[in-house]
Amino acid sequence: MKIAILGAGGLGKAAAHILAQKQSHSLVAIADAGGFAFNSNGLDAEEIGNVKIGGSVSQLKDGHFSNDSIGEIIKLKDELDGVFIALPNLPNDFIPSIVERFVAGGFQGALVDALKRTRAMEMIFDLDPLLKQNGCTFLSGCGATPGLLTAAAALAAQSFVEVESVHIWWGVGIERWDDYKATIREDIAHLPGFDVDSAKALSDDEVEVLLSKTDGKLTLHDMEHADDVMLERAGVCERDQVTVGGVMDTRSAQKPVSTTMTLRGRTFDGKTSEHKFILGDETSMAANVCGTALGYLSRAHWLRERGIYGVFGSAEMMPLWEK
Amino acid sequence: MKIAILGAGGLGKAAAHILAQKQSHSLVAIADAGGFAFNSNGLDAEEIGNVKIGGSVSQLKDGHFSNDSIGEIIKLKDELDGVFIALPNLPNDFIPSIVERFVAGGFQGALVDALKRTRAMEMIFDLDPLLKQNGCTFLSGCGATPGLLTAAAALAAQSFVEVESVHIWWGVGIERWDDYKATIREDIAHLPGFDVDSAKALSDDEVEVLLSKTDGKLTLHDMEHADDVMLERAGVCERDQVTVGGVMDTRSAQKPVSTTMTLRGRTFDGKTSEHKFILGDETSMAANVCGTALGYLSRAHWLRERGIYGVFGSAEMMPLWEK
Repeated sequence: MKIAILGAGGLGKAAAHILAQKQSHSLVAIADAGGFAFNSNGLDAEEIGNVKIGGSVSQLKDGHFSNDSIGEIIKLKDELDGVFIALPNLPNDFIPSIVERFVAGGFQGALVDALKRTRAMEMIFDLDPLLKQNGCTFLSGCGATPGLLTAAAALAAQSFVEVESVHIWWGVGIERWDDYKATIREDIAHLPGFDVDSAKALSDDEVEVLLSKTDGKLTLHDMEHADDVMLERAGVCERDQVTVGGVMDTRSAQKPVSTTMTLRGRTFDGKTSEHKFILGDETSMAANVCGTALGYLSRAHWLRERGIYGVFGSAEMMPLWEK
Repeated sequence: MKIAILGAGGLGKAAAHILAQKQSHSLVAIADAGGFAFNSNGLDAEEIGNVKIGGSVSQLKDGHFSNDSIGEIIKLKDELDGVFIALPNLPNDFIPSIVERFVAGGFQGALVDALKRTRAMEMIFDLDPLLKQNGCTFLSGCGATPGLLTAAAALAAQSFVEVESVHIWWGVGIERWDDYKATIREDIAHLPGFDVDSAKALSDDEVEVLLSKTDGKLTLHDMEHADDVMLERAGVCERDQVTVGGVMDTRSAQKPVSTTMTLRGRTFDGKTSEHKFILGDETSMAANVCGTALGYLSRAHWLRERGIYGVFGSAEMMPLWEK
């Protein structure tokens, strides 16, 4: 499967490294704000990993400078089976607008995102008829949460006739916040007093100051996270039964809390109980997000090859795991 | 979705109760060794639940005595969208032979089983071409283990580039062993010194004597469980990396240990870690097996409606959850 990655931040780089370790997939294109790189025989993941913060994949040996790198990737449509959109989604309609561009440009293939916000994902679901008409298969919310943990919730729901609540409490530890500049800003946008616009507008210094007030930790409650709309769409429960929060430590790779999905429900025989899915503390955000996203990209391709087009949430499908 | 259940033991009865609590599904037929019951407007789950051990669904108000109740259900093929095979699988080729009968009888629909043994499931996988040709969609291994926990393993694998091991350790507590006569014999068959034939041949008194030696508990290690072949088929790992065992308490509804799936793997960035999926202690075997099986039956129906036929393992698909 020939893959393009949109975005070359922490997630894009991690996805490139994962693809380099899989025989079944080949990374042929990558794009960032400064340009893109393309090689039909595969790009060099190590070289991508070495691009410094503030640099661009346009500097790679297969790189090209461009003011419209997304447009350049769309032109490569016949060279691509699937696209992982690993871009920060600020503002909310940014990724939906990119998907529309791919369709308008004649791309027919598999796509996944690692979107987080409910409103953004609803925009993606609205594209279902467009993608169906144009022979594309899009799986949305394919990161860790939403993604891996949402799918685990949909799986856990099977034991119950009534789902009472789904609670996702994540822990992420990163050594340096500026490896994940966009992700951190997306998290700040969930803090009281911020929204996506004000978080995006923060300078790096302002982010530093904000983080230093809480010893580098961000604790988030009742986040606007698309796990809710995905589980509602999958029929598991109403969106207001889903709560998402967590703790991000931006000064240590150690997770401050273990990422846990807890689904509480009532069984057919009247018992109330909880199933839990707990991620190993040593697994990084990058491993949990990008591994899952690439597994879903394989599934999107699988569905597409069988004539199943349109938009699905990751809670509705099983990712594929291929070596 | 109009459903038939083959088998009216503990699992068949539980499945009937679950279906009675779902608006999306209707149980129209059920069969056991003594006969069958059919009503195109739906059977009465409570009446099914009240059938005593040693009794038969042929005694229900919609019941009919039959020496070939499976054959009678096959004749109802045009009334059925899906079949849950909740029969004990002794000997190994019993359920595969029933599937062949359904196909030979012209049934075209969705089927699931809650098979456990590796060799039995391999026989089911061998039926893939037959089912493909005849427009049937079969999901195999759709109980708790294999099933819910195997799917959780395939999901957990996404975070890793190499899966080192999958370990399933289950706990089941039932108040009276003779509510699950067939299941207990299938478990005894995993004990050293037993096989499926010798376990099946045990009288009820012999089972009592055997259970009383260990205070009603059966502890099983390295069971021949199809989780291995299913995860191998799903590409997650080799079959010998999968181990299954557990503790069955036949004298208490309390679980002796918490059922846990632990997947150990290596991430793209070189970390070794473990994801865990833990079932709530209050959830019964019946809830975890039958809820999952019916979720997979909905998925099999979904796939079939989209022209995807053949045999799949539950680790390859996501069950659907419908009210």
